[in-house]
Amino acid sequence: MTDGELYERAVAVAGRAYAPYSSFDVGAAALARDGRVIEGVNVENAAYPLGICAERTALARAVAEGYRPGDIEAIGITASPCGGCRQWLVEFRIERVTYRSESGEIVTTTPSSLLPDTFRF
Amino acid sequence: MTDGELYERAVAVAGRAYAPYSSFDVGAAALARDGRVIEGVNVENAAYPLGICAERTALARAVAEGYRPGDIEAIGITASPCGGCRQWLVEFRIERVTYRSESGEIVTTTPSSLLPDTFRF
Amino acid sequence: MTDGELYERAVAVAGRAYAPYSSFDVGAAALARDGRVIEGVNVENAAYPLGICAERTALARAVAEGYRPGDIEAIGITASPCGGCRQWLVEFRIERVTYRSESGEIVTTTPSSLLPDTFRF
Amino acid sequence: MTDGELYERAVAVAGRAYAPYSSFDVGAAALARDGRVIEGVNVENAAYPLGICAERTALARAVAEGYRPGDIEAIGITASPCGGCRQWLVEFRIERVTYRSESGEIVTTTPSSLLPDTFRF
Repeated sequence: MTDGELYERAVAVAGRAYAPYSSFDVGAAALARDGRVIEGVNVENAAYPLGICAERTALARAVAEGYRPGDIEAIGITASPCGGCRQWLVEFRIERVTYRSESGEIVTTTPSSLLPDTFRF
Repeated sequence: MTDGELYERAVAVAGRAYAPYSSFDVGAAALARDGRVIEGVNVENAAYPLGICAERTALARAVAEGYRPGDIEAIGITASPCGGCRQWLVEFRIERVTYRSESGEIVTTTPSSLLPDTFRF
Repeated sequence: MTDGELYERAVAVAGRAYAPYSSFDVGAAALARDGRVIEGVNVENAAYPLGICAERTALARAVAEGYRPGDIEAIGITASPCGGCRQWLVEFRIERVTYRSESGEIVTTTPSSLLPDTFRF
Repeated sequence: MTDGELYERAVAVAGRAYAPYSSFDVGAAALARDGRVIEGVNVENAAYPLGICAERTALARAVAEGYRPGDIEAIGITASPCGGCRQWLVEFRIERVTYRSESGEIVTTTPSSLLPDTFRF
């Protein structure tokens, strides 16, 4: 699966988002090293800070299915990931991130480009 | 599936948790009205506030698979849900919550008992 | 200071909320045992899950000013606290919580009534 | 006040952190355009995802004191900000961020360098 195809999977799943508060649907699709694709969408809550972004849904779901950090090779996202999700991309040691940038371009980059000089713990 | 069996599904999945910071593994299993069980675990992050609890993983995963609030009938959790997750149980209009309480008992109750007089938005 | 006066302090500060996404301003006022009142408001973010509620702003501010869990006696809030904030009220061992309930009544209660059977860690 | 002095203010306040779970104390100090310095520390919770970082405490406190995005000129932080906090630095349109990097250096940079190509909402 190419990065472009992974991004298209993210686009295809975005309509499942539960985003009644922002009306901003986001989809994500994570590619595991074994070839499986695990999808996620944003899930909002009436108490806004309790919501979860699409990337984190996809990655948390992957963990629940048995994957660990290091097992996810790439992720496609329908929007530029927020800072919180970028920290997850780093934690999961994902290699390639493909997303639609603010300017409308489909970009492929790395977590460390999106979150330079992050802390280690 | 009984509430007790649902709780056992939560216990069985808890070992998949990614909890290197707290070493506190939690599992959750949501029962959809169509009979499907959707499992979740807690997924922590080096930046602690960015982590996700097991219940929210299960419910976000359910949404990514096409379920909406109202479609989940019951949930089993290996620990007493935190306040943040209780707000999700309310948002999803879940009917029954079964968890292991602080005293070690397996309790079945409702979201509104766990989060009385919550706000509507 | 009475609980009613504390609630009025919360009402008075709510206008300072930064809530451009929900347009739902919330204020909170915490009463320390030494008599000081520490106020907070909700602060939202374009990435909704990164926002902070009014109660947590007030309590985090109290900590930054030198207070610890056990030092806050009571809190007033302009709305029913979300589940996430109820977990903070428990952590800070606050005795009395006064807020405007969904039915419009001003209620004084305890954190453990608002978050029964919570976990200890 | 220089950026170095602002960083020293962050170092000085870090000891007030409430971080019983990570034992990782963080301090932050925000400089408002009117010359005031507003300090924050991280405040953790037994439910890890409900905690708040030092930078967000400082900025939420600033809002509660009447400041708005655009009113904060610079911030000093004792550690590299997490992705979630970088999103706040962008939202508040802060000009300069000074922090101790992973390599131990004191660095001054901009929010957009720390969170390139972020989304607008």
